[in-house]
Amino acid sequence: MRILGIDPGLQTTGYAVIEASDGGPALCEAGVIRATDAAKSRDMAKRLATIYDAVIEVFDQWTPGVVVVEQLYSHYEHPRTAILMGHARGVFFLVGGQRGVPVLSYPATKIKKTVTGSGRAGKEQMQYAIMREFGLAKPPEPHDVADALGVALCHYFLGGSPRRGLQSALHTGVNLKALLQDTEDE
Amino acid sequence: MRILGIDPGLQTTGYAVIEASDGGPALCEAGVIRATDAAKSRDMAKRLATIYDAVIEVFDQWTPGVVVVEQLYSHYEHPRTAILMGHARGVFFLVGGQRGVPVLSYPATKIKKTVTGSGRAGKEQMQYAIMREFGLAKPPEPHDVADALGVALCHYFLGGSPRRGLQSALHTGVNLKALLQDTEDE
Repeated sequence: MRILGIDPGLQTTGYAVIEASDGGPALCEAGVIRATDAAKSRDMAKRLATIYDAVIEVFDQWTPGVVVVEQLYSHYEHPRTAILMGHARGVFFLVGGQRGVPVLSYPATKIKKTVTGSGRAGKEQMQYAIMREFGLAKPPEPHDVADALGVALCHYFLGGSPRRGLQSALHTGVNLKALLQDTEDE
Repeated sequence: MRILGIDPGLQTTGYAVIEASDGGPALCEAGVIRATDAAKSRDMAKRLATIYDAVIEVFDQWTPGVVVVEQLYSHYEHPRTAILMGHARGVFFLVGGQRGVPVLSYPATKIKKTVTGSGRAGKEQMQYAIMREFGLAKPPEPHDVADALGVALCHYFLGGSPRRGLQSALHTGVNLKALLQDTEDE
């Protein structure tokens, strides 16, 4: 089953499609959706339509079985920016709903801990872990792609896929049901 | 040209379609989209898909020429709730973008001032103004419907539609261009 990881934003959305292979997680495709380029406009409506079309393309090409995003925090330093991000985030949940594909979310610390072993890992540690995992020669750029790969990888490790890597010990004790109940609500 | 006013929410979204008539603004349809009933689920993806389908229905039936929503604040008491609201709000911007219909937003104080004459009007004052404007026997319920009617009415008054009512004096000095530039951005 393919996993679509998303780091939503109104300007730049990172996405990553990964799947299980004999050698561990394999990268199908990763990249960014740039709504600014496409819409050439500050118009939110056009941006979201651009993002929607791009997500539909990714779904059509890769038919992911699950979509994963980072969970919302309780507090944000810049609520207005976070709400605007929520508009883009909604598009991914919407497409998941339309395609009957579950959309799960993981807290940032859980993603960091699962991918690097430390819930307080910095950006460089995350990038290093991702490079190693997928055998990349360079850190994924921009950081939105790394973040999308990180959340996809987190679900890969926690979601019960076969795993023979360094992080396999992290599987222990993970309660998937608890995670599933932990999806968005008001 | 019909105006679709929206008060977005993940549980209950108020909507109102109004149009210009010889006697002033006329109510075409107003109501609520209840994503909780339809999806019977806390699943955000299903809720947003339900909201999307309902908005498409409203667009198909009434072909609004403009969509209007309340503008975001800079600060929110409950950022997480506001971000979740942003997910639903995004769906309306998206459908506007897909249909090539502009989505405009007005600050809450502008809506209150335009509809009642006071930027600090309370809920009851707003409901009274809306009842009088549309000749309703009762205040619109739930409040989401009143809020959707309020924002639609605000655009009606400020958007240059013919107007022969009590609030006509408020038209004076309104700079529509400034309002249009005031749409969402990061």
